[in-house]
This record gives sequence, C-alpha cells and structure tokens, in this order.
Amino acid sequence: MRPHFLLIFLTVLLAANAPADEGMWTLDNPPLGRLKASYGFAPTQEWLDHLRLSSTRLSDGGSGSFVSPRGLLLTNHHVAASQLQSLSNAKRDYMKDGFYAATLAEERKSPDLEVTVLISMEDVSSRIRAALKPGLSQAEAQKARRAVMADVERESLKATGLHSECVTLYSGGEYWLYRYKKYTDVRLVFAPERQVAFFGGDSDNFTYPRHDLDMALFRVYEDGKPLETRHYLKWNPAGAKAGELVLVAGHPGSTSRLNTMRQLERDRSEYAKYLDLWRDQLRLLRQYAARGPEQERQAGEEIFGLENSIKSVEGSLQGLKDPNLMAKKQRDETEFRALIRANADWQKELGGAWDAIVLAETRAAARFDQQLYRPFNSRIYQFALQIVRLVAEVKKPDQERLPGFHESQMESLRYQLSSPAPIYPELEIVKLAGSLERLTQHLGAQDPYAAAALAGRTAQEAARALVTGSTLADLAARKALIDGGEVSVAASTDPMIVLARKLDPIGRENYRWMEDNVRSVRSTAGEQIGKARFLAYGKSAYPDATFTLRLAYGTVKGYPMNGTVAQPMTTFYGLFDRAAGFGFAGAWALPSRWMEATRRLDLSTPLNFVLSADIIGGNSGSPVVNRAGELVGLIFDGNIESLPGEFIYDEERNRAVAVHPAAMLEALRKLYGASRVVSELVRTKP
Amino acid sequence: MRPHFLLIFLTVLLAANAPADEGMWTLDNPPLGRLKASYGFAPTQEWLDHLRLSSTRLSDGGSGSFVSPRGLLLTNHHVAASQLQSLSNAKRDYMKDGFYAATLAEERKSPDLEVTVLISMEDVSSRIRAALKPGLSQAEAQKARRAVMADVERESLKATGLHSECVTLYSGGEYWLYRYKKYTDVRLVFAPERQVAFFGGDSDNFTYPRHDLDMALFRVYEDGKPLETRHYLKWNPAGAKAGELVLVAGHPGSTSRLNTMRQLERDRSEYAKYLDLWRDQLRLLRQYAARGPEQERQAGEEIFGLENSIKSVEGSLQGLKDPNLMAKKQRDETEFRALIRANADWQKELGGAWDAIVLAETRAAARFDQQLYRPFNSRIYQFALQIVRLVAEVKKPDQERLPGFHESQMESLRYQLSSPAPIYPELEIVKLAGSLERLTQHLGAQDPYAAAALAGRTAQEAARALVTGSTLADLAARKALIDGGEVSVAASTDPMIVLARKLDPIGRENYRWMEDNVRSVRSTAGEQIGKARFLAYGKSAYPDATFTLRLAYGTVKGYPMNGTVAQPMTTFYGLFDRAAGFGFAGAWALPSRWMEATRRLDLSTPLNFVLSADIIGGNSGSPVVNRAGELVGLIFDGNIESLPGEFIYDEERNRAVAVHPAAMLEALRKLYGASRVVSELVRTKP
Repeated sequence: MRPHFLLIFLTVLLAANAPADEGMWTLDNPPLGRLKASYGFAPTQEWLDHLRLSSTRLSDGGSGSFVSPRGLLLTNHHVAASQLQSLSNAKRDYMKDGFYAATLAEERKSPDLEVTVLISMEDVSSRIRAALKPGLSQAEAQKARRAVMADVERESLKATGLHSECVTLYSGGEYWLYRYKKYTDVRLVFAPERQVAFFGGDSDNFTYPRHDLDMALFRVYEDGKPLETRHYLKWNPAGAKAGELVLVAGHPGSTSRLNTMRQLERDRSEYAKYLDLWRDQLRLLRQYAARGPEQERQAGEEIFGLENSIKSVEGSLQGLKDPNLMAKKQRDETEFRALIRANADWQKELGGAWDAIVLAETRAAARFDQQLYRPFNSRIYQFALQIVRLVAEVKKPDQERLPGFHESQMESLRYQLSSPAPIYPELEIVKLAGSLERLTQHLGAQDPYAAAALAGRTAQEAARALVTGSTLADLAARKALIDGGEVSVAASTDPMIVLARKLDPIGRENYRWMEDNVRSVRSTAGEQIGKARFLAYGKSAYPDATFTLRLAYGTVKGYPMNGTVAQPMTTFYGLFDRAAGFGFAGAWALPSRWMEATRRLDLSTPLNFVLSADIIGGNSGSPVVNRAGELVGLIFDGNIESLPGEFIYDEERNRAVAVHPAAMLEALRKLYGASRVVSELVRTKP
Repeated sequence: MRPHFLLIFLTVLLAANAPADEGMWTLDNPPLGRLKASYGFAPTQEWLDHLRLSSTRLSDGGSGSFVSPRGLLLTNHHVAASQLQSLSNAKRDYMKDGFYAATLAEERKSPDLEVTVLISMEDVSSRIRAALKPGLSQAEAQKARRAVMADVERESLKATGLHSECVTLYSGGEYWLYRYKKYTDVRLVFAPERQVAFFGGDSDNFTYPRHDLDMALFRVYEDGKPLETRHYLKWNPAGAKAGELVLVAGHPGSTSRLNTMRQLERDRSEYAKYLDLWRDQLRLLRQYAARGPEQERQAGEEIFGLENSIKSVEGSLQGLKDPNLMAKKQRDETEFRALIRANADWQKELGGAWDAIVLAETRAAARFDQQLYRPFNSRIYQFALQIVRLVAEVKKPDQERLPGFHESQMESLRYQLSSPAPIYPELEIVKLAGSLERLTQHLGAQDPYAAAALAGRTAQEAARALVTGSTLADLAARKALIDGGEVSVAASTDPMIVLARKLDPIGRENYRWMEDNVRSVRSTAGEQIGKARFLAYGKSAYPDATFTLRLAYGTVKGYPMNGTVAQPMTTFYGLFDRAAGFGFAGAWALPSRWMEATRRLDLSTPLNFVLSADIIGGNSGSPVVNRAGELVGLIFDGNIESLPGEFIYDEERNRAVAVHPAAMLEALRKLYGASRVVSELVRTKP
C-alpha cells in the first residue's frame, strides 16, 4: 500500500454517531476525549510529542519511525522498494536477495530518499485569510492564496532552517504551517527478500489473513555519522496482543471523506479512466519484463506500484458504486446542507459552495482527458520539463512561481534532480511510446503534445529517438544544464529539452486555466464548506488526509469475513500453510533461506495482525504503539474491506494490517544472523 | 453440512452453456461425454459399478464409502455425530474425547444407524404413467401415483429382499426404482475429538480455508461379523493433488435448480420463516446448554444441527435475494417457456404447468404457518404419533397407507422406533415448551393443536406434564404398545399417546388436503415440466438432488476470494496458525493431544482441499476418487460461495471442501496410535 494522490477530499463528521475508532487526527487536535471515553487512556503532551518526534515521513510516499538512539529507522519493504531497486543492478539484486549490512561501514546510501520529522505546527489560517481581501475575484483570491502561502513557507525556512509547508485542512477550514527537520543521508541497513516481504504478491495485497515480513531498516545519518536521537520508539518484543488498544502515528496520503456528492461522482468517472490507463501501462511493463530476467528486475518495482494502485482504486471505485455507501453519503450531505440552510446568515455566506463545486467540476471535466493523457510517462522527460521550468522560475519573485519551485521547495527539487538512481533507456522507450500511443488514440495526432512529440514519426520511433538522443539520464548532464541556467537551456539541442521547451507554454496556459476556473473555485468553496462544518458540528472531527502526520487508534481485533471471522493475528505457521497450499509456487514461493530454516523458527510467533485504526495509503511504515508508547507493530496494509475507506470508515470491517515485532526479531535473529541490529533494537528493551 | 429437506426443486439446463463441472449425475446417465471432452477421461461401466457399490448412504443424512475389504466405512465426524452423541453419557463423552477401538471387540454398535448400498436402478416411468388413466382428476391421479409406487416398492422388496424406493427425477419427467442392500449392524471404530473434527465451529462452517479432521470410521457387520466385500475404495495415501480431475460419489439431499420462479419466490418467503423458527429453537437450546456441562453435552449435537441449517439456509436465502441470480433464473424460465410456446402441440399439452404451480403454491401458502408451527419439537411425541399411526396403517391395504407406513418402509420404521438412543426429559421439555409457545404466538391458543396440548396449562406446565407423564422414552414401552396393536393404543393413558390420538385426525385431514389441492397439482405440473424440458433440451442434463446416489466431478483448484485467491489446499500448518491466531481459544482451541504432539506431526501434510465438483448437503461423507478409482479425499463441506448452489452452480467460486487422506493417516498414526486401522487402510495401497 502506498499513497496515490489522484484523489480529492468530507466525512461522516457527526461526532456523536462517529464510530469510536474512526479518524486520522492531527497532532494539534488529538482525540483525547474519545481515547479517554473508549479506552480510559489519557496520553500526556510529552507522550504525544515523543511519538511525533519519533515518527518520520519518507519522500517515497510512506511513513516510518526511529527505533534506536542511533538513527535506526523502521519502515516497510515496499516503501524502501524504490531505493532497493535503485541500488540494485544486473549483478546484485537487493529486491530478490535482500540486504543486510553486517557492519556500520556496509550500510548503503540510498540515492534519493528524504526523511522528514515534524518539528512544529502553527495555525496560520488568519494570515492566509487576511490575504484574501474583500472584492477579489476568485481567480485573484487564488493567486493571493498561493502568494501568501509562499511567503509563509519562505519566511519560516529562513527563520528556522526547517523545511516548511502550508497544509490545507478541513477542505480549507484551516491552514497550518508544518515545519520539518529533513535528512537526506539515509542508508540501507536491512531488507528481507521481496518474496517474503511481499509474500502472496498482488493477489494477497490488500487482503487478510496476510503473511508478510514487509519491513526494512534504514539508518539516518547527520554529518556523516549515525543520528543521535532520544526520540525513538522502544521496541516491545512481545508486541501487540489481541484486544489491546494500540495507536498509529503516520502519514495517510489522501482521503475524500469530506467530498461533496458532485465530487464523488467526479471521482467515480475519473477513477474508471485512471484504471484503464494504468492497466495499459501495466500490460506494457509486463511485456517488457517478459523479455528476460534483467528486464523483469528493472520493471519489478514499477509493476508492483501499478498493481498496487490498480487494486486500491478498484476498491475505492467499488465503494463509489455501492448504493448503500452512496446513499449514506447523500443523507449526510442533505442533513449538513439542511443545518446550514436553517440559519439564514450561514446560508447566505456559505450555502452557495455546493453549487460552485458543481460548476468547477463541470469545467474540470471538459479538460480531464488532457490532464490524463498529456503527461508523458518518462522519467527523462520529467527531468527535462523540471529543468526548463526551474531555470525560468528561479528568476521570478517567489510569490509568482509555479508550485514546486518556491524557495521553500528548492532544496528537495535540486536533490531529486541530482538523484543517481539508474534509468533504463529501453524501459523508458516502452513507457514513453505507450504514452504517445494512448495520447494519439484519445486526443488525436493533432493534439499539440502528440504533434510535438511525434513530429511525423510513429510512437515507437519518436520514443526511441527522444530517449536515446537525450543525455539527461546522466545526472552530470542535468547538473550542467541547471548550472548554465536559462542560456544553456535555451541553447540545448537535447531532444527532451527541445520538446519540453515547446510544450511548457501550453502546460503553463493549462495551469493558469485550472487555477482561474477550477482550483480557485474549489478553494473558495472548500473554505466555505470547512467553515460551515465547524459552525454546524464544531471541531469535533478530523480533516481529510493530506500526507501529514496523523494519530489513529483502535483495537487489535478480527472482523466478520467471508462467512466466518478473520483471526486477530497470523503466525509463521500461516506463512508456511499458504506457501504449501499453493505448492510453494508463484507468488507463494518462499526464499530458500526460509525453506531451509523452517525447523529453526518458532512457528507460533505472531507474524501479522489486524487493528481497527483508521489508516490509508501513505500510512505504510507507520509505527503501531501501545499505551507505553512502545513499538508493538508496523503498519503495511489494509484489508480489502478497507478500500472504500477513502470515502467512509466502517469500524465493523475496516482493518489496518501490521507486521508483528516478534516476527521481525525472530527472522532477524534466526534467519538473517542480524545480531548487530537485534542488539541495537532490544538493548533498550523495557 | 447435512441435508435439509425443506426445499423443493429447475436448472440452468442449457447443456451447451452449462459450466463444464456442473452437475449431480445419476449413475444411469453418467456425464461420459463431458468427462471425455473436458478431461479426456472415459470410465468403464465396471469402474462406475465399483464406485457405486463402494458408496453408501447413511440414515443420519449423509454419505460414506467402504475403505477396506472388511467393511470399514469412512464418513464425516459430523455425520457420525448423532451416533456419537447417543453412545455418550455423563461419564463418557465420545464427542468431546473422541473414540478409538483398539481391537475388533471394542467396536461399539451404533444405536440406530442404517447404511444402504445402491444395488440396482430401474426406469419405472412407463408403469407409473400407465397407472395415471386418462380422465382422472388431479387428486385421483395423485392417489393412483401413490398406489402404484407402493406396489412397485412392495413387489420389488418381496422379489429381491432389497430395500426398494421409487425416486422422482426431473420433477416427474422420470420415475425410477432404486434397490438397496441395507445394513443395520454398524459399529463405531474411530472418531477424533469434536474440537478438531469441527475446528472453528459454526464460524468456520461452510467457509474456506478450512482446517478440520472431519472424519469418522464405522465398520459394517453382517451376521455378527465384519462385512466381507470386494467393493471398497483403495486408499491413496498421497491423496488429491492441485489441478487433478477428481470425482465424487454421494447423496446430495435436495436442490431446487429446476424450480419455477413462483417456487423460488415461495422458497424466499418460507426460508425467512424457517430461519426465525430455528433461531428461536437455537436460543432455547443454548439456554439449556448454559445450565451446566452435562446439559451442554446433551444439547451439543442438536445445537450443531441447528447452527448448520441456519447458516446453510441463510446462504440459500441470500441467493434468492441476489438480483443477478434471480434475473438469470427469470431469463432461463422465459427462454424455456418461449421454446414450448413456439410449438403449438407442446404448448397445448404442457404450457399450463407454470400457471398450475402458481395456483398450487398460492393454496399452499394459506396453510404454511400450520405446517411450520404445528409439529411438536419432541422426540417422544414423534414416537407417539408414529405408534398411533402404525397400528392403524398396518391394517390397511398397502396402496392406501400414509407415506412412511408402506410395506417397503416397515423395516426401517420399526428399527427407528426401537432405537436405544437416550432421550433427556428436561431437554424434551424445553423443546416441546418452545414449540407450544411459538404455536400459541403464531396460530393462537384456540388452534386445535395448541388447545389439545395445553389443555388450559401454560406451555411449560403442559410440556412438563406430557414429557414426565409419558413412558415412551423407554423403548420397551414403545415395543409393548406396538405389539398390543390398535387395542393397546386405544386403551393407553400415556399422555403423549392421548394427545397423538386426538391430533391424528386433524393431521390426516391436512395430509389429504395437501394431497388433493397442492401436491397433486405439483406432481402433474412437475411431470409436464419434466417432459417439456426433455422436449426442449433433450436429456443432456441432470435431475435435482433427491438424496440418491449421484456422480459429480471437478478439479482440485482454488478460486477468487475476498480480494485474493483461495489456496487449493490447507495443511496442518494452517490448523495451528488459525488456532494460534485466536489464542487457542473458543472454537479454535485444540485438543490437548494435538497441542502436545505438534512437533511429531509433519505440518506440511495436506489437511483440507477444495474441488469444483457440484455437491450439496447430504454429500457429507462422500468419497472423492481419482481416475484410478482410489480414495483421494472425503467431502465434508462447501464454501460460503456454494450456498446459493441450491439454485445455481457457479464454477468460478462454488467449491466443495474435502479432508485429505494424508492428514487422516498422519493423525491416525502419530496422534491416535491407530495402527490396527492404519494397516487395514493402507495394506491394499496401490
């Protein structure tokens, strides 16, 4: 499970009716009343701060936590997969074989992973709102909003040195400034074989009972040395127990629980198109992988990512097609709007928001196919476009720049542009040719993007010429262009740069059009609906997910499943049962290390478990802690019943799936001989 | 899983469209063409005869097979459960502790189990039809049908000494005479603990993945000695393999695939009422069981039976409420009726059958509540009613007797009336009082059944007086009454006999009314629809299940389940995983013998597996055989997706669940020390 950011955002906010374990709570507004009422648990501010400062966000789209005073960081194998893939080559395949650094010196620097820790949160709603002077058109207000956010972020960065982000919560009901400490020297310490980390493959993904050792360990360095930190989670080797209250700190990517009905309808239509697109991309990647083992290795992580997104969005789409779910959403919206309508002042100020959204979404639908099919599926082209824009944007006042090019974002942008992660030309050609074929098919060969890229050639010819003619796979070439600035970029004959120069103005026009006609309306309407919600229900609820730190909580417990009850935990017994049940073949084959060492393992060791905490993609790698704040699990998935969780939380059947610490220790000790790491993890054992 | 005979009977008979593995085929019409086409398998007549003669029907509602030349019979623990319960008492509990006869002498006679083997099948359609002279009213035709069937059965019994039954196939499209060899000296040899035989309890029942050692062994005796037979299935210790063709010989109880739409609607309404009734019965039984361990033991098997029926009928009802299923059924019926309508002769002779069924079912609905609530849930009362009727019926010509009292049925009736199985008065009181309360609630205290039983008392008082005042729990008392004939019964002051004498005339009037107004119409219409089906589609299909021997076939294979794929097999690993996953508690606790011996077992031994063969309740205990005719599995359940199988077969997801022979051997050898039985099973190993 990883976040997918295609999605937008409204919830079943009736606090009185909300299920006890629902919610992804911001750390400024933790659910203290609910925890006290449901579980008799009252965490102190110190407890909350320690958990926050022990939790991390990973730039590859997941979460993690510090688990030792020397910067050891625990996350999922599938969150680490992009780095594992980049560190592998034809001769050494860390995805297939796993990795363990027996000494500190052997720890391997990840090419482009950024790890951030949330240091502070500040409510900047009044400053943002103050910038939205009365009398501005919606488009002008949108510009003003962007500008003041850039100011806030830049000023904060300058004042604190911390990475600073404005976060829109409650669909614009509140704006916050989040400040992060960022680490970029992040080294790989341990990863098991993909076959046991992702046991059961795409079939078992998003399901339960599950049997995956979906873990990886990095170490965060500062100034070339392991990070010294007192904020880490103590490892509880006994781990989570059935019936126990547990809490989750992580970064859920995106939910759409506060969406209006019109936005849910939009999602339903757009998701179906995304699925078609992704299935086509997946088909091409599988064809590529079928060429040979090295091609299979190169495409492996992207295939996983696409399969994961497809299964996740299929689940969301099923929710959007579920008459019960949609009827509930409609009832909630009808009741909410009736409450607003019942107060003439509220209705006058805020009641128009829903119709405004209808307008914005109708406009957006007219350009949706362009948004979907024009982006080229090519890492090299993305570099080219970023470089063309970077050299132009840096010369502008910060307030006026495109998103992604603000002062506060420059460090990460330059870091990502200088990633040494390998790029495989033949794979790039397959992906880009696929983009060009779909583009031509859906928008026609006369579409300016298609015409510019194809220039009379077939998609295959064009893709090959563009990829093989470009030097941008080489990070030195990228650096030279960036350092040369606008002059170098204007003079470049690199075909990818040439293409990006030609298409950039069209992209900018589209950005402007979306800002003025769609996003500005959404922003204003979102702020109105956010305010309306506070007026109608108070701030008794949580905002939709925004890939920012949230606290969720729940009980380790099974649920009704397919005629029976899902067990709260699985064990190594279950891993071997499922492998044997499929004849140790395909996605259920086990690494030889595991086949040989069965007898050495305590098979009754808990492997995975389910909890009712409310999570979603982006929570991958989140720590699960007990009342003492000790690590008792590692989130890595949700069950299939949780996929409509994008829109609604169902306490009866929505479950997060976590790796149990006992299984991690048992495997590290008995199968991987990872005594160095084990002693680091458990020396601080309570 | 066990049969429930509440149900009636129409299938997706379009042979061309029928899924390859669909069908419960009579042995006179085995699916040779399909087996050849799908699997390249052409069983000989000798192969089929041997399988038939090795297969058995058990009077407790299941199937079984001979697995040694000395009469050893394999069935399910849950088919044996009624006998195990009857053989147990407060001091020895075979359900809880299991049973193993270390020597032949220790094998324990079952109180009232009858085992039958299908010796021959004869098409008697023309004789039955000849008795239905032109010009008879439907009611007269029904009497004539009953009479000629009684003749056929009695004559066959007299001529062959074999138990003889007329079987109505294809809803009356054909009538067959089945002759059985019957055995009543059936001794218990082995049963495991209920906790491992029915591991996971009601929760896991009708689900998969499953982990049950649902087996029991009896031995059939003849003349006081183990039956010598050359018709038994050789035990294949390697058992079924994923992907393999396997065949099932067993006795599916009842399906409703040939039902008309009107009958499906009736089922939908009736099932909901049955469920209410059973849930109330279950509630009372659980209250009784909660009184103490001995009460829990006494009620155990009945609680299992009710839970099983409830879950099964809930699944059927879900099918009847599934718009897709019902739309498919409607399309099939519309197409079928259009084919008949397209031929003027067919339409004239047969086209009225559907409307006739509408009429019959509308009539039946008017008396349904009586049918449901009047029968008293009391074994003693059932004895009393059978005795009152027996002494009257035996004096009548065979043709005129009530069903169940014909000459051909007398032996079984007397055998069951002389069962030494214990009856627990307090449990009888609870069950009977429950009946009386529901009867009063639904039909009123003035209903003649209620008035006669209550006689001014409360339900509790009446039940207690009736049960404690009766001597019929004692088999000697029953025998004395039967031997004394009409005079003794007329003179009896046993309150159960007094009550049965009073209610018998009302029951007989109701029987007559149902015969004349409902069943006669159903029979005639059923014969017409059966004929219409042969005309429209030919005899390319199988008849609905009738608790007679059928051949099914399919592949050992998984299926799509809850977002992933169900594994073809489970292993002992899975048993321990599921037990550990629930903390070895509740329905997932394991017997101490199993807990202590984990290390001794080869945990990779296959335990249960799924196959696409088309089965239903009554198939419990059916042997699964390979192409060589060897035993490779033991049917004991269907998955939850198979429950709508009463109405429709879905090859994608409908699966039978079987115990694997390797697990049976592994447990017999390593946990039960059953060397005597093991050597008998595998000495003839191929």
